[in-house]
Amino acid sequence: MFNHRNVSLGQDVKIGQNVKIGDNTRIYDNVKIGDNTIICNNCSVGEPVNDFYYNDKYVNPPTVIGPNSLIRSHTIIYCDSIFGENFATGHRVTIREKSIFGMHCSVGTLSDIQGYVQFGDYCRLHSNVHIGQKSTIGNFVFIYPYVVFTNDPTPPSNVCIGPTVGNYTQIAVGAILFPGIKVGENCLIGAGAVVTEKVKDYSVVVGNPGKVMCDIKDLDSKEKKGKHYPWMYNFDRGMPWAGIGYDKWMRNKKSD
Amino acid sequence: MFNHRNVSLGQDVKIGQNVKIGDNTRIYDNVKIGDNTIICNNCSVGEPVNDFYYNDKYVNPPTVIGPNSLIRSHTIIYCDSIFGENFATGHRVTIREKSIFGMHCSVGTLSDIQGYVQFGDYCRLHSNVHIGQKSTIGNFVFIYPYVVFTNDPTPPSNVCIGPTVGNYTQIAVGAILFPGIKVGENCLIGAGAVVTEKVKDYSVVVGNPGKVMCDIKDLDSKEKKGKHYPWMYNFDRGMPWAGIGYDKWMRNKKSD
Amino acid sequence: MFNHRNVSLGQDVKIGQNVKIGDNTRIYDNVKIGDNTIICNNCSVGEPVNDFYYNDKYVNPPTVIGPNSLIRSHTIIYCDSIFGENFATGHRVTIREKSIFGMHCSVGTLSDIQGYVQFGDYCRLHSNVHIGQKSTIGNFVFIYPYVVFTNDPTPPSNVCIGPTVGNYTQIAVGAILFPGIKVGENCLIGAGAVVTEKVKDYSVVVGNPGKVMCDIKDLDSKEKKGKHYPWMYNFDRGMPWAGIGYDKWMRNKKSD
Repeated sequence: MFNHRNVSLGQDVKIGQNVKIGDNTRIYDNVKIGDNTIICNNCSVGEPVNDFYYNDKYVNPPTVIGPNSLIRSHTIIYCDSIFGENFATGHRVTIREKSIFGMHCSVGTLSDIQGYVQFGDYCRLHSNVHIGQKSTIGNFVFIYPYVVFTNDPTPPSNVCIGPTVGNYTQIAVGAILFPGIKVGENCLIGAGAVVTEKVKDYSVVVGNPGKVMCDIKDLDSKEKKGKHYPWMYNFDRGMPWAGIGYDKWMRNKKSD
Repeated sequence: MFNHRNVSLGQDVKIGQNVKIGDNTRIYDNVKIGDNTIICNNCSVGEPVNDFYYNDKYVNPPTVIGPNSLIRSHTIIYCDSIFGENFATGHRVTIREKSIFGMHCSVGTLSDIQGYVQFGDYCRLHSNVHIGQKSTIGNFVFIYPYVVFTNDPTPPSNVCIGPTVGNYTQIAVGAILFPGIKVGENCLIGAGAVVTEKVKDYSVVVGNPGKVMCDIKDLDSKEKKGKHYPWMYNFDRGMPWAGIGYDKWMRNKKSD
Repeated sequence: MFNHRNVSLGQDVKIGQNVKIGDNTRIYDNVKIGDNTIICNNCSVGEPVNDFYYNDKYVNPPTVIGPNSLIRSHTIIYCDSIFGENFATGHRVTIREKSIFGMHCSVGTLSDIQGYVQFGDYCRLHSNVHIGQKSTIGNFVFIYPYVVFTNDPTPPSNVCIGPTVGNYTQIAVGAILFPGIKVGENCLIGAGAVVTEKVKDYSVVVGNPGKVMCDIKDLDSKEKKGKHYPWMYNFDRGMPWAGIGYDKWMRNKKSD
């Protein structure tokens, strides 16, 4: 994979220590890649915006890929975006300009981030998620395949208002969030739900149109006796509280 | 992007003036590319159909890309298709054989056009739209992410009847159109709607199964006082009536 | 397409007779490709799993592509999978490790198989199908675009139980199968259905949440007088009973 075939680097590219770049990958101007990051075959990093094609004086805005990241093959990351440490993508991901991701985020195969979006830390987007422009997502938000975040309430129009999603919320496969919708913290948006109204913290929403079915704290675990949510007490793979538990991690965090 | 690395051209390829072709792009036999068109990296234009693999005497049918087009990276366009002027694609678009697009159409990232389809002018397909074979789409139709046009009423069968969509209609994210369904002009198919019956002009359809919710002319603008639809009076970005207004454009058109 | 440009082969790659490999394609270590198979441009076969990036002693597990297969361009097939004869893919397919496919299966453009799955013979996945880990699919199952097989009943959790689908069942566009759901034989899951409960043989399920609408044997043909299902009596394209009829094929099979 890393045979240095047909790799090309633009101007003012800064590459950290121990970085690997795959065959046929193109890094455009003004990209900075953190230490120990791996960029696989056939990727494009710092992909220029439209003006590049028609303006001879185009200057590519800076792009920053954090250290310890893993960008899988055929991923296209536009310029003018910032990715925190330990960022990861699946294959064929497209991320447009002005996207900001915190630490330890991942974006699955075929996902399409339309740019002008902001993600907190430890967000996980599975395969084939579509995030429209002007979306704002908190920390520890997991988004499952074929979820769509929309932003135009009266298509087509000049209004662009993305959804907002609170910390720890889970959005299951095929859910659609309407433009400008606010989803609270610790919610579960069910598979195939169409969310047309504001969602309060700890709500479970299902159906088309989406309706609140119950409080998330009522849902049983499928692994053991008792409740599953808030999930931070029952799931820690890859989370910063792994091994020590959510409560202890929170206490440590507050005492920092 | 345009370093002439690993570009390959088939036979009888006709390339207009001021055309740019990106690295690792392959143009197959009998492709004609209009003036000022840009084809980015890793594309395939005039991709041969199945017979190519198994028939030594295969001849690639002609493909025409209109002038002033922009084909973004990793797009695959099969042979035997015609695209009018100012055509544009996002990344990783797949367009199969016998697709006809009018002028000023665009097809978003990851969209999959199955071929044997016809689009009018100024159609916009956003990301990840799936258009089944034998679909017919009018002018100024906008189709949003994850919409699917189906064509087999009793899968699997030998029947293939695609949907028909009238001028100016908008089809919001995740909608599914049933085989052979006729959607009129100036309709709005809501997000996640499953359209199982004929839709009259000016209808708003929502839900699964889709039901008419109201007349589109009843929907308020989110930008200002008054109604938003017919949207041509409130949106003109990229439209031929930009700057002059829809009524004046129509009058000019009629007097042509 | 087959110009031997930039093709690379790993160690212990076994290539059968009359195999073609497209430009820019990479075959990783320990891949075996059967006779008469065609692998088009820009593919990756035997793609290594994550450990490859971080472990110097990584050994790539074996991958087997059956004879007479056709892998279309930009497809990524991970190592440690087995594909029976006459396997076919569309473009940009992703198939993760530990996937087992029987004979005469096809996987359409953009489909994403998450690995740890098992398919019988003569399965057809159309474009953009997402199969979660631990799914089990019988023979002659057809799955249409944007269908999702899920596997986590309480996201996020450590439970991973995929759906099971019986022989001859058809799953129409945009359907979602809940984790661990069992769908019987000869069913039709309707477009956009969200399947949350066990489905008995011969059921037609529609809606969100999915409800049984009728017996599949009640559905009329759209091609002629009479019923369409069981579809094996009315459709034989590419099927082993083509030309002889389903009953005769079954009798021949039993007498084998």
